[in-house]
Amino acid sequence: MMSKSATRPILRMLGRFYASTSSGVEAAASSTTSTTQTVKQTLPVTGHKLAYSEFGDPSAVIRRERFQIDAVPENHIVVKMLASPVNPADLNTIQGTYPVKPAKLPAVPGNEGVGVVIKTAAIPGRDPINEGDWVIPRTPAFGTWQAFVHGSSEDFIKIPQMDLVTAATLSVNPCTAYRMLKDFETLKPGDRVIQNGGNSAVGQAVIQLCREFGLKCVSLVRPREDFKQLKAKLMTLGNSDTIIITDDDLRGMMRDFKAQLALNCVGGKCATDIMRVLDTGRTMVTYGGMSRQPVVLPTSSLIFNDVKLKGFWMTRWNRTQPHEDRKEMLEYLSNLALTGKWIPPEHKLIPFAKYRDALENTMKGYTGVKYIIKFD
Amino acid sequence: MMSKSATRPILRMLGRFYASTSSGVEAAASSTTSTTQTVKQTLPVTGHKLAYSEFGDPSAVIRRERFQIDAVPENHIVVKMLASPVNPADLNTIQGTYPVKPAKLPAVPGNEGVGVVIKTAAIPGRDPINEGDWVIPRTPAFGTWQAFVHGSSEDFIKIPQMDLVTAATLSVNPCTAYRMLKDFETLKPGDRVIQNGGNSAVGQAVIQLCREFGLKCVSLVRPREDFKQLKAKLMTLGNSDTIIITDDDLRGMMRDFKAQLALNCVGGKCATDIMRVLDTGRTMVTYGGMSRQPVVLPTSSLIFNDVKLKGFWMTRWNRTQPHEDRKEMLEYLSNLALTGKWIPPEHKLIPFAKYRDALENTMKGYTGVKYIIKFD
Repeated sequence: MMSKSATRPILRMLGRFYASTSSGVEAAASSTTSTTQTVKQTLPVTGHKLAYSEFGDPSAVIRRERFQIDAVPENHIVVKMLASPVNPADLNTIQGTYPVKPAKLPAVPGNEGVGVVIKTAAIPGRDPINEGDWVIPRTPAFGTWQAFVHGSSEDFIKIPQMDLVTAATLSVNPCTAYRMLKDFETLKPGDRVIQNGGNSAVGQAVIQLCREFGLKCVSLVRPREDFKQLKAKLMTLGNSDTIIITDDDLRGMMRDFKAQLALNCVGGKCATDIMRVLDTGRTMVTYGGMSRQPVVLPTSSLIFNDVKLKGFWMTRWNRTQPHEDRKEMLEYLSNLALTGKWIPPEHKLIPFAKYRDALENTMKGYTGVKYIIKFD
Repeated sequence: MMSKSATRPILRMLGRFYASTSSGVEAAASSTTSTTQTVKQTLPVTGHKLAYSEFGDPSAVIRRERFQIDAVPENHIVVKMLASPVNPADLNTIQGTYPVKPAKLPAVPGNEGVGVVIKTAAIPGRDPINEGDWVIPRTPAFGTWQAFVHGSSEDFIKIPQMDLVTAATLSVNPCTAYRMLKDFETLKPGDRVIQNGGNSAVGQAVIQLCREFGLKCVSLVRPREDFKQLKAKLMTLGNSDTIIITDDDLRGMMRDFKAQLALNCVGGKCATDIMRVLDTGRTMVTYGGMSRQPVVLPTSSLIFNDVKLKGFWMTRWNRTQPHEDRKEMLEYLSNLALTGKWIPPEHKLIPFAKYRDALENTMKGYTGVKYIIKFD
């Protein structure tokens, strides 16, 4: 069990799920790799990395330093990072409050990102990962906030070349949406999914996947001045059954609605509200706590309406479920991207040198954009 | 979904789960039946029943009236009621706030109770239910607060003759405890169950069933002056691994404990507390809301500790699950009673004529005793 003091900062960051910034990568001196073409590159390579030697406030403990990779183990592949998002979980890891810790300090932060393979001993066409391939890390806390990473081919998953932002943000938010729609209720086309935080990166992914799965998606967003524009934008992600409403609209509009699945990343009143429209025996899945309020559930809903409350954490799923299932999921999502059916979340690409902008804006939360460090 | 106004009184009564009184039955004029022997009895039979013609405050809407059964359908059996508990759910049904409603008004209240068969067309020894057998109603809202009931043999379940209070209270509270221990987690001997409301009738049943199943039971009770005596009493129901503590003791004592199942009939802080000691991926089952506070769950527990929240309602289980499973459960519990291994809950037997005492004391809640109407 986590201590109360450890829990609070996590909730604080969960409260900012899915924003993002970054800062211009300083291209490695010897690199001629671009994001779309690959040129064989030999060691040494030189670039910058972010690192921290003690847990604490990211703005205070993170430093940017130049490093060089002179040699790697025989079986290692070297990957030039292209782009890495700044997720709230990254900040919690740096704060030392996240359940995933770096193996040792000093450590390089970054759980997610996409890179291109610039050195491998693989036989082209025969081995699973070859030079020029795009890869994402297989494990969390891999340290993606650096110009180059290396590891065995087991440490990476190959993905097709696609839109850079989609690739950099593929493994956490879209996968979270995918699993929540697949693993908690057996949904059939026409069933209804209700979610809060509809404008979060996961929320946007849920709207798009509901469209693909033939589900009716009701998304709640906080009341705001530009609600009409936001609604119009989110509607383009969905199907003809997509509904975008503010939290306040729910009670009036949903009186006769029943949902077969509820997805909660907010907590507090807004979680209770979407739980109230759940059909008998159905599940609300919690994957975030933007409001920093706990989930509150009337006893009668549990007993007489038989609603179930569960949580979802992508990291646990990746650790415990077969890799084949993950591959299948990434293939499905990649195909959506490759066929033009996937719109990446609202974002800002930040050059690596300006990484502080990415950190500080993500810390603020509720920015509505994901900050992504771009290394090229 | 239930309206807010409907939910509140239910919670109010859930807040008083499992108390009990009653008032002297006026024996039917022609009855010579006692609780332990049966004498063939022919119609008509005359006795009293409680009834209500409108939903409302039980003290105001319930009246006691004399009635006579002159004739019953060919295939009906006639049962002389022996004892019926007053459960909070009965009062909510009278208030009109319970999800189970009588088929029509006026109606006789009472969901639970035991009676003896005084008339049947069955061939002795060949039919499942014979004169002299003890039976309990198969469906809720059967109307057990009357001296005589009748129905087809399908409407009743035969149980062995046993301690009267155990028999009268067998079908709700012990069954609730049994199902919660069996159906939510696969528990092995040595696993730990934590519950609040340890002094409730279900709580006492849980302690006894944990003893039989080889489980370690940690029971929380509210701090009180006579805690030592209460603890001593509850300890006699358990095994050497039974622990009885006050709510306040939990944090200090349970620091290194992990439970594999949590049972909640209180809600509020006390539900959050027992949920906090749940092992990763385990379940808290809610079956009551004594504190009238909702269940509050930190987001981090759902996401990172993967705890699951579910509800249990015996009525739904009875409706949806195979009757064979119910028979098997009742046989198991009956055997415990017959072999002296079952201690019925703290109770007061109330003569039928004094039924108001039973109603009013159960309404008060937190009496620590179950009030049982005794018809003989």
